[in-house]
Amino acid sequence: MRAAIAGASGYAGGELLRLLLGHPELEIGALTAASSAGSRLGAHQPHLPQLADRVIDDTTADVLAGHDVVFLALPHGHSAAVAAQLGAETIVVDCGADHRLTDPAAWQEFYGGDHAGTWPYGLPELPGQRDVLRGATRIAVPGCYPTSVLLALFPAFAAGLAGPDVVVVAATGTSGAGKALKPNLLGSEVMGSVSAYGVGGVHRHTPEMEQGLSAVAGTPVRVSFTPMLAPMSRGILATCAAPAAPGLTKESLRAAYEVALKDEPFVRLLPEGVWPATAMTYGANTAALQVTLDERAGRVVAVIAIDNLTKGTAGGAIQSVNLALGLPEELGLPVTGVAP
Amino acid sequence: MRAAIAGASGYAGGELLRLLLGHPELEIGALTAASSAGSRLGAHQPHLPQLADRVIDDTTADVLAGHDVVFLALPHGHSAAVAAQLGAETIVVDCGADHRLTDPAAWQEFYGGDHAGTWPYGLPELPGQRDVLRGATRIAVPGCYPTSVLLALFPAFAAGLAGPDVVVVAATGTSGAGKALKPNLLGSEVMGSVSAYGVGGVHRHTPEMEQGLSAVAGTPVRVSFTPMLAPMSRGILATCAAPAAPGLTKESLRAAYEVALKDEPFVRLLPEGVWPATAMTYGANTAALQVTLDERAGRVVAVIAIDNLTKGTAGGAIQSVNLALGLPEELGLPVTGVAP
Amino acid sequence: MRAAIAGASGYAGGELLRLLLGHPELEIGALTAASSAGSRLGAHQPHLPQLADRVIDDTTADVLAGHDVVFLALPHGHSAAVAAQLGAETIVVDCGADHRLTDPAAWQEFYGGDHAGTWPYGLPELPGQRDVLRGATRIAVPGCYPTSVLLALFPAFAAGLAGPDVVVVAATGTSGAGKALKPNLLGSEVMGSVSAYGVGGVHRHTPEMEQGLSAVAGTPVRVSFTPMLAPMSRGILATCAAPAAPGLTKESLRAAYEVALKDEPFVRLLPEGVWPATAMTYGANTAALQVTLDERAGRVVAVIAIDNLTKGTAGGAIQSVNLALGLPEELGLPVTGVAP
Amino acid sequence: MRAAIAGASGYAGGELLRLLLGHPELEIGALTAASSAGSRLGAHQPHLPQLADRVIDDTTADVLAGHDVVFLALPHGHSAAVAAQLGAETIVVDCGADHRLTDPAAWQEFYGGDHAGTWPYGLPELPGQRDVLRGATRIAVPGCYPTSVLLALFPAFAAGLAGPDVVVVAATGTSGAGKALKPNLLGSEVMGSVSAYGVGGVHRHTPEMEQGLSAVAGTPVRVSFTPMLAPMSRGILATCAAPAAPGLTKESLRAAYEVALKDEPFVRLLPEGVWPATAMTYGANTAALQVTLDERAGRVVAVIAIDNLTKGTAGGAIQSVNLALGLPEELGLPVTGVAP
Repeated sequence: MRAAIAGASGYAGGELLRLLLGHPELEIGALTAASSAGSRLGAHQPHLPQLADRVIDDTTADVLAGHDVVFLALPHGHSAAVAAQLGAETIVVDCGADHRLTDPAAWQEFYGGDHAGTWPYGLPELPGQRDVLRGATRIAVPGCYPTSVLLALFPAFAAGLAGPDVVVVAATGTSGAGKALKPNLLGSEVMGSVSAYGVGGVHRHTPEMEQGLSAVAGTPVRVSFTPMLAPMSRGILATCAAPAAPGLTKESLRAAYEVALKDEPFVRLLPEGVWPATAMTYGANTAALQVTLDERAGRVVAVIAIDNLTKGTAGGAIQSVNLALGLPEELGLPVTGVAP
Repeated sequence: MRAAIAGASGYAGGELLRLLLGHPELEIGALTAASSAGSRLGAHQPHLPQLADRVIDDTTADVLAGHDVVFLALPHGHSAAVAAQLGAETIVVDCGADHRLTDPAAWQEFYGGDHAGTWPYGLPELPGQRDVLRGATRIAVPGCYPTSVLLALFPAFAAGLAGPDVVVVAATGTSGAGKALKPNLLGSEVMGSVSAYGVGGVHRHTPEMEQGLSAVAGTPVRVSFTPMLAPMSRGILATCAAPAAPGLTKESLRAAYEVALKDEPFVRLLPEGVWPATAMTYGANTAALQVTLDERAGRVVAVIAIDNLTKGTAGGAIQSVNLALGLPEELGLPVTGVAP
Repeated sequence: MRAAIAGASGYAGGELLRLLLGHPELEIGALTAASSAGSRLGAHQPHLPQLADRVIDDTTADVLAGHDVVFLALPHGHSAAVAAQLGAETIVVDCGADHRLTDPAAWQEFYGGDHAGTWPYGLPELPGQRDVLRGATRIAVPGCYPTSVLLALFPAFAAGLAGPDVVVVAATGTSGAGKALKPNLLGSEVMGSVSAYGVGGVHRHTPEMEQGLSAVAGTPVRVSFTPMLAPMSRGILATCAAPAAPGLTKESLRAAYEVALKDEPFVRLLPEGVWPATAMTYGANTAALQVTLDERAGRVVAVIAIDNLTKGTAGGAIQSVNLALGLPEELGLPVTGVAP
Repeated sequence: MRAAIAGASGYAGGELLRLLLGHPELEIGALTAASSAGSRLGAHQPHLPQLADRVIDDTTADVLAGHDVVFLALPHGHSAAVAAQLGAETIVVDCGADHRLTDPAAWQEFYGGDHAGTWPYGLPELPGQRDVLRGATRIAVPGCYPTSVLLALFPAFAAGLAGPDVVVVAATGTSGAGKALKPNLLGSEVMGSVSAYGVGGVHRHTPEMEQGLSAVAGTPVRVSFTPMLAPMSRGILATCAAPAAPGLTKESLRAAYEVALKDEPFVRLLPEGVWPATAMTYGANTAALQVTLDERAGRVVAVIAIDNLTKGTAGGAIQSVNLALGLPEELGLPVTGVAP
C-alpha cells in the first residue's frame, strides 16, 4: 500500500516520513508541499538520507490521487478542500485541526470561519474509539496537547473519580510551533528560557480537551489550560489537576489507571514514585504516565510525557491508520525512545 | 560594612558574591563552606575572577563573627545552630528553609524534626512586610518557588479577587537543585527533557506558599503545586490559577494588579498581551508578571518569571538586607537581565 | 542468536539495548553491571519500556557464558579478564579502549599499565577492514572521536591527498563522558556553555587517530587533537584540517571522496555546499561528511557529524558484529536520524 | 556625555544598552533602527525594563547628530554613509565590518564592493593599540571571532613563539548570527545540534584574523578557520593551534603569556590545568584563556572563551570608547560573568 504526504517539508511531515520508512506495509509515495515544491527533500529533512533526492511536488489532488493513504500535514483550513477531491475509499488523515471538533460554535470561536465537519477522532485509547477507527476512511488526528491530556485523564473520568474543574499546564518543545520563521522561535530566544503563551482560555486546543473529557465523563468538563514553550525541540510534559471525587484514595485511583491501561500498547503507567520525563519518550509512540492523589489540595494530579511529533502527531496518525487498514495497531511504531 | 557568606562554593553562594561585588555598601568578608573548605574560590566560581584566589574557610562561628551581615546558604537544618552563636546585632540571613514557616506542624510534616523558629520573612513586596524588615536582624529568605507564587498572586488575594483552591505548576532551571551530584541532574539527562518531580502536595515549598497566600487572603488557601525541571540553568516560570471571584472582569483584575504593583521596583506588570519568559529576568532581581481572567474556566491565571538565584534567592536576600540596614532597597541590585 | 550486555545500565549499554531491540537476528540475553547489579533496568533506562522489569546481574563470566555475542561496555582495564573466561567461539566485543591500540608504548603512555593486546579494529569502512572483521571473534570497537576522524580523513589519506600534520578539533555531547557523577557534567554547568578539555595532545583518543591514519597513509601521521564539550546529550562534530598535497584541486578532492564512499552504507558525503550538523545523525548509525579545499591556507578541511553513541559506539559495534556473524552489514541499524 | 545607538532592536544593540545602563559617564540618547522604527524598545529588548517605553527612531543623521558617541550596530555596508554625515568630533563606533580591514583587495574578496576605508581597530590589548585609540574619533570594533583569536595568539606571535600556519576552530552561540529569521537559526534546529558553516577559508572574519596576527608577527600569517554553531545563545570558544617555534618549552610559553597579559584587565590567563568554558564569561567583558604546548604535534594550542556580545562586540566597543574619551578603560564594564 502506498501513502502520500502533503506537507512533507515540515516537522510533522518529516516525522511521518521517518516512521513510514520503518513501516513494513506502507510504501512512501508522493511528497508534496507548498512553498518548498520543486526542491529536493534533502534540503528540508537532512536526517532522512534515503529520501534526500526525492523531489517535492505541489500539493494537488492529482498528485495525491491513487494512493491508499493520504496524510495531510497542512495548516488548518486547507484539508477539507483537498479531501473533497480524493476518493471516498482513500484513507485521508488530517494531521491539522479542521475535523477534530464536533461543535461548530467552538470551531467558530477558536478558529473562525465555517466548520469543515467532523471526522473520526484518531485517539484509539479513548473508550470505544478503536471500533470507530477500524475501517474508517477519514481520520482527524488529535492535537498534540489534547493527546497528552486525554490520555492522562480519561481513566479518572471514565471511572468517575474526577470532577469537572480541571487545570492543565503543559510544556512543549519548539517543534510544536512548526518551522514558522517567528522571532520568538529563534534559538537565541528559546535556549535558556521557558515562556508562557496562549494563556487565559484562548489556546485552540482547549475546546478539544473539553470535548474529549466531557465525552468520557458524560458531563461537561471545563479546562483551564496554559501552554509553555520549553528549551527543547520535542516533547510535551503535561500536568493535569482535576478535583478528586469524594472519598477517593490513592489506592483506588491507581487501581483505576491500572485497569484502564493494562492492555494499552503505547500508554505506560510508570512504577509508583517515578514521574515522567519527556526524554523517556523521545522519538517513540509511547506516553509515560503517572498519577497521584494530592490529599491536601483534594486533587487528582496526572502527569504525562509524550513526544509531540510522534505520539502527538505522526505516530498517533499511523496508529489510527493501522486500525483503519485492519493492520496490527502497533505495526511500524517505535516503542523505545532515544535517550539520553 | 562587611558581609560573610557561608556556603560560598554553591550556586546560591556564588550568586550572593556576584551581586555583592557590585554592591557599593557591602564589602565581601569571610567565605566559608563545608566540604570545599581549604580550596580556592576560583575552583568553584570561575565566573568571579576577582575572588579567584580567596581561600574558603570552614563554616564556624569564629570565622563568621565580626561581620555586619552573615548570609547562610546552607542545607536546611544547619542555620539555627550557627545563628545562635552570632551576636544579636549581627544581621543573619538564612537563605535556607529553617526559619520560613510559622507553623511547627507544617515544618514537622514537610521537613521533619524540631522547628527552629520563625524569622521575619524576606519578601518586601508582601503587604506590610517592609516595616517588618526595616531594622530586622534575622531574615528568612523565601523559597524560590514561593517567591514567584506569592508575587504572582498577592495582588489578587489582597483585593479579594481570588478564591482559595489554587493550582500552581512551575518550571525551574537546574540550579534550583544546587550542585548535588545526582544522576537526574546530569547534563545528559536534563538537556532536551522536561520532567516532573515532587508531585501530589509533597514539595516542601507547598506549605510556605499556603502560609503566605493565606495571610494575604485572611482565610486559608490551599495550593496544589507541581514543580517541573526544565532544560535551563536558571529561571522559574510559574503558572498560578486561582478561582475568580464572582463578577470579576478582566479590567478590574488588571486594575488591581496595577495598583498593587505601581511602586514596586522589582515586580513588573508586563504590557497587556505580553507573557513572561524567564529570559526577561536572567541575572536580574526582577519579576516579570502577567495576569488575565480565563472566563471559560472561571480562573484568574497569573504567570510570573523570575531568576531563581537572583530574585528567588540571593537578590531577594540582599533586597531585604538593604531594608534591614536602612539602605535604599534597590541598592546594588540589577534590574536588567542578560539576554539573549 | 543471543547477545549479553555487560554494562547495561550505562549510556553505551542503553544504546546497545535500544538497537538490539530492533535487530532481527540478535536476541537480548543477560544484562549485567557493577554497582547497579540487583536493580531493574527500568531504573536506569526508562526509555526502554520492554526491558523495564529485567533484573541486572553482576558482571561475571558465568552470567555472560553461553551467549553467541557478548558486548562489553566497561571502563577500560576490565575487558581482558572477562574475555579470557569466555570461549574462543564467542564473539566478544569490547566497547572500551583495551584492545584498540597496536603499540604497547602508546598504551602505556596514554592509559598506563600493561597492554591487554590488540583485537580486530571494528571500523569496517577502513580499507581492507571488512575482510578482517568477517568471522572475527574478538572486536575492538573504535573510540567515538577516532571513528569520526578516521571516517572523515581516510579517503584523503588513502588517495595521497593529505599530509601528516593534522589538526582536529571536535565537539561532543555529554553522553560521551558517561554517567559519571562529576560536577562539570551537571546540567547547570553544561547548558549554555562550550568548554575545552584534554588539550595539548593528552586525550587518550589521540594515538588511536594517529594509528589509523598512519596505517591508511602508509607513513606516520601526527594529530593535534582538541576535544570540546558542547551543550547537547549526543553527537560529535569534528573538524579535521590536513595539509593539502601539492597541486590538489577541489574537484579532485571531491572525486576521491566520492569514489571512496560510493558504496558505504553508513557514510554519507553531503551535497556540495551543505555542511554537517549533528542533528542529521541523531540516533542513526550514519556519518554525515563534507570536505573542501581551503586554498588560502593550503588545507583539506573535512567536517563530519556522527552520533557518538550510535555510529560512535553501539551501532558501530553491531555493524562489526553483523560482519563477524556473516549477516548483512546493515542489519538492524537505523539509517534515519530523529530530527528536529 | 550622551550616546546614540543605531541598531537598537538587534542583539548587539541590546547588549550596548544593557552595558550603557550601568555606565556612569555615558547617558543613553537616541535609539534608532530600520524595520523596527516606530515601535517601543520593550517589544525587542524585554530584559531592559527601564527602556521599555522608549520609542525607536529611524536611523538618520539628524537623529544621531548631537551625541558625543554614536554606536553603529548595522549590517555591513551601512556605516560609512552614516558616519560621513556626523561631525568629525563625534566618536563614531562601527560595530560592523566596514572599517576593519586595511587591505581593499581582502575587502573586495570577502565582502564585495568598494572598501569604505580603515578606522582605528578597537582591540586595546594588541601591542601599541591603546595609544592609537586614545583620542580616536572613529573606531572599528573587531569581529567577535577575531577578538577571540587575536587575544588568544598575540602573546605567542609577539614573542616569536609561533609559526604562520595557524588552524582555528571556534564554536559560537546563535546570537552571533543576529536576529535574522533563517530556518537554520530556529530553536528546533539549533538545540541538541552542533553544525559547521563557512568552511574552507570563506568566512569573512578570516582576513581580519590574518591581518591582526600578521601585524603582531611581523610576517604573513595564514589561518585555516572553521566556525561552528553550538546550542547556546552566547559565547565563543576558540581553539587556536599554531606551529611551535623550534625549542619551545611549556614553561617559556606560559611565561610569555604571563608577561604579555599581566596588566590586562579583561584577559585572564587561567591557572595551569584549567581550561576555558564560555560560562566563565557569560555577560562579562572578560576573556578566559589557557595555552599549552602539544609536544607530540609540535603545536602551541591556545583556547579562549569570550562572550561574543560583550567582549566580542558591545563591551569591547565601550572599552575602546572609554579610551577614546580619556576615561578609565574599565569603566562600566562587568568583569564577573553570570553563572551557572
